[in-house]
Amino acid sequence: MKKILIINGPNLNMLGKREPEVYGKDSLDDIRVWTDSKIKSEATTEWYQSNIEGEIVDRIQAAHSQDFDALVINPGAYAHTSVAIHDALKILKIPVIEVHLSQVYRREEFRHTLLTAKAASAIMSGLGKQSYYIAIKSLID
Amino acid sequence: MKKILIINGPNLNMLGKREPEVYGKDSLDDIRVWTDSKIKSEATTEWYQSNIEGEIVDRIQAAHSQDFDALVINPGAYAHTSVAIHDALKILKIPVIEVHLSQVYRREEFRHTLLTAKAASAIMSGLGKQSYYIAIKSLID
Amino acid sequence: MKKILIINGPNLNMLGKREPEVYGKDSLDDIRVWTDSKIKSEATTEWYQSNIEGEIVDRIQAAHSQDFDALVINPGAYAHTSVAIHDALKILKIPVIEVHLSQVYRREEFRHTLLTAKAASAIMSGLGKQSYYIAIKSLID
Amino acid sequence: MKKILIINGPNLNMLGKREPEVYGKDSLDDIRVWTDSKIKSEATTEWYQSNIEGEIVDRIQAAHSQDFDALVINPGAYAHTSVAIHDALKILKIPVIEVHLSQVYRREEFRHTLLTAKAASAIMSGLGKQSYYIAIKSLID
Amino acid sequence: MKKILIINGPNLNMLGKREPEVYGKDSLDDIRVWTDSKIKSEATTEWYQSNIEGEIVDRIQAAHSQDFDALVINPGAYAHTSVAIHDALKILKIPVIEVHLSQVYRREEFRHTLLTAKAASAIMSGLGKQSYYIAIKSLID
Amino acid sequence: MKKILIINGPNLNMLGKREPEVYGKDSLDDIRVWTDSKIKSEATTEWYQSNIEGEIVDRIQAAHSQDFDALVINPGAYAHTSVAIHDALKILKIPVIEVHLSQVYRREEFRHTLLTAKAASAIMSGLGKQSYYIAIKSLID
Amino acid sequence: MKKILIINGPNLNMLGKREPEVYGKDSLDDIRVWTDSKIKSEATTEWYQSNIEGEIVDRIQAAHSQDFDALVINPGAYAHTSVAIHDALKILKIPVIEVHLSQVYRREEFRHTLLTAKAASAIMSGLGKQSYYIAIKSLID
Amino acid sequence: MKKILIINGPNLNMLGKREPEVYGKDSLDDIRVWTDSKIKSEATTEWYQSNIEGEIVDRIQAAHSQDFDALVINPGAYAHTSVAIHDALKILKIPVIEVHLSQVYRREEFRHTLLTAKAASAIMSGLGKQSYYIAIKSLID
Amino acid sequence: MKKILIINGPNLNMLGKREPEVYGKDSLDDIRVWTDSKIKSEATTEWYQSNIEGEIVDRIQAAHSQDFDALVINPGAYAHTSVAIHDALKILKIPVIEVHLSQVYRREEFRHTLLTAKAASAIMSGLGKQSYYIAIKSLID
Amino acid sequence: MKKILIINGPNLNMLGKREPEVYGKDSLDDIRVWTDSKIKSEATTEWYQSNIEGEIVDRIQAAHSQDFDALVINPGAYAHTSVAIHDALKILKIPVIEVHLSQVYRREEFRHTLLTAKAASAIMSGLGKQSYYIAIKSLID
Amino acid sequence: MKKILIINGPNLNMLGKREPEVYGKDSLDDIRVWTDSKIKSEATTEWYQSNIEGEIVDRIQAAHSQDFDALVINPGAYAHTSVAIHDALKILKIPVIEVHLSQVYRREEFRHTLLTAKAASAIMSGLGKQSYYIAIKSLID
Amino acid sequence: MKKILIINGPNLNMLGKREPEVYGKDSLDDIRVWTDSKIKSEATTEWYQSNIEGEIVDRIQAAHSQDFDALVINPGAYAHTSVAIHDALKILKIPVIEVHLSQVYRREEFRHTLLTAKAASAIMSGLGKQSYYIAIKSLID
Repeated sequence: MKKILIINGPNLNMLGKREPEVYGKDSLDDIRVWTDSKIKSEATTEWYQSNIEGEIVDRIQAAHSQDFDALVINPGAYAHTSVAIHDALKILKIPVIEVHLSQVYRREEFRHTLLTAKAASAIMSGLGKQSYYIAIKSLID
Repeated sequence: MKKILIINGPNLNMLGKREPEVYGKDSLDDIRVWTDSKIKSEATTEWYQSNIEGEIVDRIQAAHSQDFDALVINPGAYAHTSVAIHDALKILKIPVIEVHLSQVYRREEFRHTLLTAKAASAIMSGLGKQSYYIAIKSLID
Repeated sequence: MKKILIINGPNLNMLGKREPEVYGKDSLDDIRVWTDSKIKSEATTEWYQSNIEGEIVDRIQAAHSQDFDALVINPGAYAHTSVAIHDALKILKIPVIEVHLSQVYRREEFRHTLLTAKAASAIMSGLGKQSYYIAIKSLID
Repeated sequence: MKKILIINGPNLNMLGKREPEVYGKDSLDDIRVWTDSKIKSEATTEWYQSNIEGEIVDRIQAAHSQDFDALVINPGAYAHTSVAIHDALKILKIPVIEVHLSQVYRREEFRHTLLTAKAASAIMSGLGKQSYYIAIKSLID
Repeated sequence: MKKILIINGPNLNMLGKREPEVYGKDSLDDIRVWTDSKIKSEATTEWYQSNIEGEIVDRIQAAHSQDFDALVINPGAYAHTSVAIHDALKILKIPVIEVHLSQVYRREEFRHTLLTAKAASAIMSGLGKQSYYIAIKSLID
Repeated sequence: MKKILIINGPNLNMLGKREPEVYGKDSLDDIRVWTDSKIKSEATTEWYQSNIEGEIVDRIQAAHSQDFDALVINPGAYAHTSVAIHDALKILKIPVIEVHLSQVYRREEFRHTLLTAKAASAIMSGLGKQSYYIAIKSLID
Repeated sequence: MKKILIINGPNLNMLGKREPEVYGKDSLDDIRVWTDSKIKSEATTEWYQSNIEGEIVDRIQAAHSQDFDALVINPGAYAHTSVAIHDALKILKIPVIEVHLSQVYRREEFRHTLLTAKAASAIMSGLGKQSYYIAIKSLID
Repeated sequence: MKKILIINGPNLNMLGKREPEVYGKDSLDDIRVWTDSKIKSEATTEWYQSNIEGEIVDRIQAAHSQDFDALVINPGAYAHTSVAIHDALKILKIPVIEVHLSQVYRREEFRHTLLTAKAASAIMSGLGKQSYYIAIKSLID
Repeated sequence: MKKILIINGPNLNMLGKREPEVYGKDSLDDIRVWTDSKIKSEATTEWYQSNIEGEIVDRIQAAHSQDFDALVINPGAYAHTSVAIHDALKILKIPVIEVHLSQVYRREEFRHTLLTAKAASAIMSGLGKQSYYIAIKSLID
Repeated sequence: MKKILIINGPNLNMLGKREPEVYGKDSLDDIRVWTDSKIKSEATTEWYQSNIEGEIVDRIQAAHSQDFDALVINPGAYAHTSVAIHDALKILKIPVIEVHLSQVYRREEFRHTLLTAKAASAIMSGLGKQSYYIAIKSLID
Repeated sequence: MKKILIINGPNLNMLGKREPEVYGKDSLDDIRVWTDSKIKSEATTEWYQSNIEGEIVDRIQAAHSQDFDALVINPGAYAHTSVAIHDALKILKIPVIEVHLSQVYRREEFRHTLLTAKAASAIMSGLGKQSYYIAIKSLID
Repeated sequence: MKKILIINGPNLNMLGKREPEVYGKDSLDDIRVWTDSKIKSEATTEWYQSNIEGEIVDRIQAAHSQDFDALVINPGAYAHTSVAIHDALKILKIPVIEVHLSQVYRREEFRHTLLTAKAASAIMSGLGKQSYYIAIKSLID
């Protein structure tokens, strides 16, 4: 059974309240429960969220000496601006998948620059709440 | 049971022979067989490949009056240059997922511009041969 | 009586089905019939459409040794990317008018670059189905 | 019978004297007479010319409470630099066609930026003295 | 009691008639009356409007030898293109506040460049008809 | 009586000590006291300051379920770089005014890009310690 | 004896009052008198100044049918933005020298773009009040 | 004896008819005959031409399992825009020389971008009909 | 004896574990001990590290009222993106030296933009673990 | 009587032989003789030419301890590329006038960037052989 | 028998010692001998090398009055930065071929800009030591 | 005892005379003496200066066959423009440290591009006369 860390960036704790026409009506906790019910016994997940760039760096670094098999990260707005998270991800030896709930290429121009993605082995964008489940599915298979 | 059209762009007919360290050792046909074995009875797939931009436009247009439930497209090199395929995709009413075998953000700069992606509801990049299966999986769920 | 060749680029065969709020409800054939009825005996027209960039180049080249008095071209998406069509147009000795059904300057930024237009003697953009008739009218007068 | 306002920007009062190989030998008045003889009883035209950006804005604004059916504007050099004329055009409720005597895409690079055109419903470029007649023709039909 | 000059650029004489969803329903004169009623005896205002860039330069220059305590300017479209107004403003020794009725950062990209603002001591954008009153208020306090 | 939240970004806790010729001699607390004395009983204010981008995001999010009537934010340096604060501001339903003590357009080039401002209904720049009072005044009126 | 037209753009009527450390203490009239005293009987000059772009275009056009031997123009701020003046200058058949009192390459970046200069046969920048005399001198010799 | 494949892109089938002052008077077939007469028994050549980008990709791919010793390609206009041909060339294991009849650096700016050249081991530009012979010569030696 | 503050940015707490071929095998603590042994009694150092941008701003601000003689900062990834740290550094009156372990000009393009460096009196890049010692050495001499 | 140093950059020793339609038929020595005959007893000149950037730097430096009253420099091609000459010019305390025989703004785009000009007190461009005389004239008056 | 001048730019005197995996193991003298042995009695060559930009300009100028039939130049690093060499080449009346040993399009981005090439009639890049022979061969034929 | 070569670029022979507020009052020879007195018997130095780019290339190349342990280079203005020096530095096998007396990031924009630095193992900028000593110190330790 795989052990997977799931990190969420700024404003993802507001899911369900924030522009539901873009991000959907489920809260991050709803998505966690739904995801775990889908993956059943194939993997265990640990979920983390922070609005603070440096705390996300801290959490990624901590994973370096923990026994996770993979990391799924939704860096939110920091995907477009954070060299620090990019550098932290490059320290890890495990696969990293970056996910975005919305399809970033159909939104504002400043969301077309993906900086942390240069340190990810795969990217998924636009799958809504399915994002986490599908990312985990691809890691298990 | 969903019916899914899978379109592949230029040079994907050379999979297995082309830079295997980037794209893997399987041929496109190997991937088709592997994918169908994974999805089993959940969906039927029709696979198409062409090196000619306009023939890909033709195939997408034809799908407009066929009963596919979704389109998975790997536009290959045309992902970075084709306004014509972009326009053809926008004619369709069904969900479109764009996939790339390699992670385009870790490759040459000219592969960082994604043009057809503006007409896709979701993007996946970097999953190797899993790409098609995972895209279909997300369409079924 | 003038003899005029009319070439149409990718996705124009889908007129009527494609974003009717942008391109109108008539099919390309409807437009042909309507145009011919307007110009009556002042000119004869030959209509060509292809989604394939190189076939459009072929058709333009063929016109070089035919007795057309003028060329009206709606290059569709290739207007923004094709150096090949640009080069083919420059081989012709007859007047070339480029038309666009929609007004390209009010649409996405990537439609503001006009490449083939550098080889056209005149451009018209935004006249809808009238485009062809008005272009022919200007050639006759 | 349609009533059409025709506005001309800077240096168009010098037509016939200015670079005749680019703009032709007719004066603006010659063109007015020729145009009116072509459209005959199908429309009446009112012609205006000014070298002053703000006077052109004034004239466009005045048209807002007059009963013109359409506006044809040749903004001359202001086509490339005037946000003020662009804004004035957006106040109008009638169709606006922008015309250029020469084909701007075959000239200097600084003429490739079209700013006022973003407020026009159609553009025509490169038809020489025919420009006004053809524009009016398209408005009548 | 402070004496304040208020200069308005192109198309502001059309307020109330021009895109009311962006600029509001009041005419410039309505705003003048409303503003004066708010500031009461704290300041006297003189209002000027022109669509002509050079006349605005003239009016600013004239203020150089008049006894105004401050200048409030809404340069309209010229905010984005006029080096001449910028230079005229730099001649003045009194405080200059630039105001925009709409929030320019939420509109078209070409309105994000502010050129005259480099010669203003303060900027306000997005306060609608309140703009003038609030600017004067800040000058009085 | 209106209830207004006032958020201050990095280095604003150093006001009075930091480049006084640019930012003035008052500390942020001096400005708070002065502002409250000006607005008297027209509004109550709550002041918050942090140097940490993510804590500012936290504070904005918290306001989503509090009963503030408006938000005044001086994002300091994060105005130019933070997509995360921009996204947090867009979650709020109340008016947001962004203020800058200095006139950003007269300073270094990297301060001319305003990112969070795209989520603000109004901007004020260059009013010094008056900024907060004037912003609140405009919200009350 | 040569007959020379001298055209001055916006804000040059404020010479002597405007940033004297940049532009010197003499008024434009002082410079005219000084220049005429230097050239004595070698040439006659006619001086013109306007803040209005279109009036400068008017004046240049008028020179087309007058018997001037050369034009000296100090386009002021319009040097950087006016395609209209550029086009008017190209109509003339006589030599055109563009002068700038200050050295534009040592000032703000937006003054490094010279647009009207593309229509001038020579440029001089940075000679202060000598500019006009030296330009005329070079035309006489 | 070496066996060499020679691929020609769009509009090269019009050699002799197209802008002879740029490309010379010989047809592509004339050049083939002249080239073969020069190389005599040192090599055999197979010539291919297509206006269709994807067919050129097809031809390159086919060469992957044929016994050519080298490829000479004149991609014509596709040299500047085709990622697909670039990718196809990278699949080959044999030397690839890209040739251009005209010297691309002395022509329009959009011909200065060379995209397919990144996949070529050598480039030659500006040698006219000699291009193919000289390229083959360098491959033989 | 000089008293020197040494601030380290994100991921520097992972030294020794992170890409040792780029950053060396020593941990930050190893480097601290080695540095102190080198400088002996010439200076005392206080070392600080944080992954959080705002905490680094806090630490720099605190130094404003402490009696340090100089600051050595390795801003890590924030060197390329943080206006906030730049602004905090400008508040200090003591010399600031920015150091980078690796030579940033030989790495990815996004590391060539140095933002915080504009507030530093000197920069050193590429000296590995020697960086801190050499920076301190230059401050002592 | 003024003493003036005149420095000429690369290829100016070829005047008369090089593109005479651009640069005129006189050799540099012809121009020297003609210039001296014009200035008569008003000034003495010393002429220097080199094709080597560093020798020009040497010559400028030497002037630092000689008693020239002014420097006239025609940097030729180095005007567009040499930071070293720019820096050398800034060491001098005497006036520096940069001249160009041709009007650089009417030539290739790469000649529109003027780098050394940032260290010159005045620039003249387009006066042909008159350049040196007119520059000296302006220095004497 | 043709007489050909061969000019070599900076660092080419280090061939054989410099990055042999890029430039090969032969010294420039080895290449000269090898080339002469290949061309035999078909042409005589004169070889020149300098690291100094201006000396290369000198050598090119000297060729203007010598009886060479053609010039082959490998400008090395100056190919990307020298307007002076470009200008010198344009003075010559004989054919000029620019050669590069390595394929510049497969190397660092700053080697993709070719400046001197605008003055060459042909370019060859990537042929290694064959470069000179092949260039001469094409000149002879 | 280490043997170190120290190369200085253009205008550094003018140290002490050139903008002393930027570069200090010491001549290059003063700095040499001061540096040698500091390093005492730890190293011997050889100092070289030239204003000529190609001579600096010569000197670097010569070092290739001499027994220096390291190179310290202050390329002056050539740091921003010389591909030739960059290429010469890459030929060397010994460590190269690039130094700048002033802090280039606080000066004009054209000094922010560092080209030769891509061939240096370390950079130091802003240490004034200490630069050379500190660079040597880091090489010894």
